[in-house]
Amino acid sequence: MRIETKVEKFNEHLYLESGRLLESFEIIYETYGELNEDKSNVIVICHALSGSHHAAGRYANEAKAGWWDKFIGDGKAIDTTKYFVICSNNIGSSYGSTNPMSIDSSTKKEYRLKFPVLTISDIVKAQMKLYKRLKITKAKAVIGGSMGGMQALCYAIEQPTFTDNVIALATTAYTRPWAIAFNKIGIEAIRHDPIFNNGNYKKDDPKALGLVGLSLGRMAGLICYLSPNLFNSKFGRDYSQTDGLYELFGEFEVEKYLKYNAYSFPKVFDPLSYLYTCKTMNIFDAGRNKDKLEDSFDKVQANLHLIAFSDDMLFFPEEMEEIRDIMIKIGKKDKVTYKLVQSQSGHDSFLVEVEKFEEHIREILKDK
Amino acid sequence: MRIETKVEKFNEHLYLESGRLLESFEIIYETYGELNEDKSNVIVICHALSGSHHAAGRYANEAKAGWWDKFIGDGKAIDTTKYFVICSNNIGSSYGSTNPMSIDSSTKKEYRLKFPVLTISDIVKAQMKLYKRLKITKAKAVIGGSMGGMQALCYAIEQPTFTDNVIALATTAYTRPWAIAFNKIGIEAIRHDPIFNNGNYKKDDPKALGLVGLSLGRMAGLICYLSPNLFNSKFGRDYSQTDGLYELFGEFEVEKYLKYNAYSFPKVFDPLSYLYTCKTMNIFDAGRNKDKLEDSFDKVQANLHLIAFSDDMLFFPEEMEEIRDIMIKIGKKDKVTYKLVQSQSGHDSFLVEVEKFEEHIREILKDK
Repeated sequence: MRIETKVEKFNEHLYLESGRLLESFEIIYETYGELNEDKSNVIVICHALSGSHHAAGRYANEAKAGWWDKFIGDGKAIDTTKYFVICSNNIGSSYGSTNPMSIDSSTKKEYRLKFPVLTISDIVKAQMKLYKRLKITKAKAVIGGSMGGMQALCYAIEQPTFTDNVIALATTAYTRPWAIAFNKIGIEAIRHDPIFNNGNYKKDDPKALGLVGLSLGRMAGLICYLSPNLFNSKFGRDYSQTDGLYELFGEFEVEKYLKYNAYSFPKVFDPLSYLYTCKTMNIFDAGRNKDKLEDSFDKVQANLHLIAFSDDMLFFPEEMEEIRDIMIKIGKKDKVTYKLVQSQSGHDSFLVEVEKFEEHIREILKDK
Repeated sequence: MRIETKVEKFNEHLYLESGRLLESFEIIYETYGELNEDKSNVIVICHALSGSHHAAGRYANEAKAGWWDKFIGDGKAIDTTKYFVICSNNIGSSYGSTNPMSIDSSTKKEYRLKFPVLTISDIVKAQMKLYKRLKITKAKAVIGGSMGGMQALCYAIEQPTFTDNVIALATTAYTRPWAIAFNKIGIEAIRHDPIFNNGNYKKDDPKALGLVGLSLGRMAGLICYLSPNLFNSKFGRDYSQTDGLYELFGEFEVEKYLKYNAYSFPKVFDPLSYLYTCKTMNIFDAGRNKDKLEDSFDKVQANLHLIAFSDDMLFFPEEMEEIRDIMIKIGKKDKVTYKLVQSQSGHDSFLVEVEKFEEHIREILKDK
């Protein structure tokens, strides 16, 4: 599989939904496979909160492959011998695209808390400029899970002629207060962390790279990304030390797991990006500008394929069913499919239980 | 209704499961109603993590009545014209019974992090000493929800002749990793809060009374005490400021609610008590000393009444059903009842949806 990682700079304004703008912006993106002559084999992959443009393949010296490597590659469900796959890093995210730690060209300083709040539509709009630059006018499919699924829905509604298929996994048409509540733990923990220093933490300061506030936010995230059943089967009541049961800070295996994953997170993710990305997710609502959801989904022209996971504790299957029901209600029954996967890994099933839906994706992508 | 609040001091050792001991201890408790002559009308109420001995009635100048006032009072389900109700503050809790901020008689200093880890059995054992002092040898019922339900189960198993009925609501036979994970957020947040200062925070310091770490723990708790549906119906996507949607720190109503309740919590609850109480809950396992649950429940002589709530996101109905199934398996079908309440308030339903199970409780308590 051919992998390329590139950066595109856009010396043009990006007008944002908030009324603000980015004077200029950059997108880092990765591609897998080869673009065919008539540019008809494009598949767009959208990433989730902590994801990046590195969706597949493994760089030299990299311990883990890209976040959806099970799914994308030669002969895999997203077959890179057939398709040209593009995954770009969302603007706002800290993996290389323009984000709060980028230089604001008007002040020559990092934006930090002056960065504008972005919406899912803004992220998609920036990605559309990338495709234009690459002279790609049409995709075979746009695919994403969680926050990537929000983007996928946004493509379906706001870029209705861009893609033949939209595949949205483990997502929602609008973020409900349950998900907003989990994000709130991280927002408060980061804001109150003295090292965060109101957004003026020192870049590359070892303390900022171990920011407790961000770790606590990640810990809250890890809980709602998994599920009670997964925790039971993965950890049970195993204790990490044999004699620590009556030690106040002795730990169960589940606590050790949470700590390990939470405290390593600030090494790879920026706290300002985290705040901005949570905000972007919190305010996502496909029923835009006080339109009803029906009016929004009425704009859809692509085939919309919804995949929900039975034990998703962040975006419950009912939220995906609501989208299906709306599509049926507005007379687009032939444009929508819904699959409920019996999952055991909670919200993260879209990442780790690929074997349960890959055949379904192959069917969708099969030339008809 | 006659209410009395009293403190009993015990100048005797309390031997703890950990192998440690409390040299002496105190219990603050409240009683409602009148003890009859043959002391046959006693009902014991056990409180949850953030509860206290103040279960019912309203003190002068008190804004809110006791935490289970809907349930306990003259003519209510726990009818104080008939019963003598006792609710004691758990040792370890910060409402007046011996806790980590109490004076260790051997050092003349506050215990703080030298306080021993307590188990649910230790708490119940201390309460049994209170009843002995009051010359009460038998209760008509022991009733508790959540951590109070753990105590109720412990009475059933470890004090089998003390009570005729045990009513356990919204609880579990052993704390599973999902619940431990929610507690972990608070434990880590408190430990890392610089004001906590490794347990050496200044008592009554306004900063300690607003301890962010404890607030974050409370916020995590508030999420799992409620439910996605309750959040939807209570808050929806209402925004607290009309023009704040694109402000990074603009808030949805659910965020305002969480903040208000989380940040007011350290004013009424001590962070060390919180750590110790979370630990007590985390290590609760009715299958003691490597006994199987079957062996533990085989000791039960009282009638065991289990009440679960359909949308409890902390201790799921399946956890209560497991107890019922064990009772049936070991031949105690006639000793167990199980009621699943169709609830809308999540775990907290045992506190706020009393009208859905009060009739059931009246039936249980009716003299047969």
